[in-house]
Amino acid sequence: MPQFEKIEYKPIPVSELLLELKNLSELMIDLAYSAALFNDKELAEDVLELEVRIDTLTYLLDMEIMIAARDAKDAETLIGVSTVAAAADKISDAAADIAGIVTRNIGIHPIIGEIFEKVEERLMKATIKKDSILIGKKILELDLAARMGVDIIAIRRNRDWILDPVETELIFLGDILITRGAPLGIKEFKDLAEGKLKKLEY
Amino acid sequence: MPQFEKIEYKPIPVSELLLELKNLSELMIDLAYSAALFNDKELAEDVLELEVRIDTLTYLLDMEIMIAARDAKDAETLIGVSTVAAAADKISDAAADIAGIVTRNIGIHPIIGEIFEKVEERLMKATIKKDSILIGKKILELDLAARMGVDIIAIRRNRDWILDPVETELIFLGDILITRGAPLGIKEFKDLAEGKLKKLEY
Repeated sequence: MPQFEKIEYKPIPVSELLLELKNLSELMIDLAYSAALFNDKELAEDVLELEVRIDTLTYLLDMEIMIAARDAKDAETLIGVSTVAAAADKISDAAADIAGIVTRNIGIHPIIGEIFEKVEERLMKATIKKDSILIGKKILELDLAARMGVDIIAIRRNRDWILDPVETELIFLGDILITRGAPLGIKEFKDLAEGKLKKLEY
Repeated sequence: MPQFEKIEYKPIPVSELLLELKNLSELMIDLAYSAALFNDKELAEDVLELEVRIDTLTYLLDMEIMIAARDAKDAETLIGVSTVAAAADKISDAAADIAGIVTRNIGIHPIIGEIFEKVEERLMKATIKKDSILIGKKILELDLAARMGVDIIAIRRNRDWILDPVETELIFLGDILITRGAPLGIKEFKDLAEGKLKKLEY
């Protein structure tokens, strides 16, 4: 497995690794279903890339656990942590399987769309274009939840993912935002991101 | 596999089966993490029971797909549906693994609790006791979201699960409700369910 060769041991707190594994794997499921719903190849590729990140995190976590466990008692208390990490890995595999439908051009059966019609909240991907009024603004300034019922669940900046960004996070040109909300709200947000809509409505 | 022997083919629309598989598998993840967080054996057992239900649903769905596919073209368009179902099954396996930590008394490491402290919304299980003012009320009458920021995500009635119940659903004595919300709100709801709190506050 060549992708494992470059992973160097970095001491990151186990709780941090586990939290990221949990959040990332749940985000991946959402992203994968969205990729299938919108037949969005790019989003599906993102899911497959995140799968590699999950593998890395799982690998680092397993190393940390091994180092932490000095005796049988330690091992006993740590086995639960390793099980949760393995479960997150399994969830990410499931997400990758769904994303694979899109990247392998299997075709999205209308039934997959149907199961989403019953979901009130949708996910949307929006890229910040150069004319967007959102550039340079903090998330909290936008007051998205109150204004349009939209929540930014992740930001893709360059090659990094920022999960569940803090309210003081700034928005930059080129950011890819994953938002969750009612269909109308996320459409409005996408227009703001792409510079098609020039002011925040109330 | 003896649990498969009793499954009889019932023609249920594929979209309905797939929707239930998707919703149930996601609920199971939430329930499994909650079981781990609260070290709740009963909830963990519920997750393991739901895993059997997922297997049944996957089995029925696979039968439906086989019957629906008459030629290679049909099969090609249906393979995506079967992949999504298999992914839901994998997610439910992951949930069962987490639940297994609780039922097998492995012990919940404090780190697992820690990763939940950062989550604003929690899950709570509340059983409707005989003195509860909620008995005989419709969900919409309670106006839970506005009053206390609580959402009923599932009802366990006798041996059945009602996922994402409709607003007109009545609440019965003995119902087990799975709620999601801020810690204060779900605590208040639990007190209402158990008859410890006798009126809805605003």
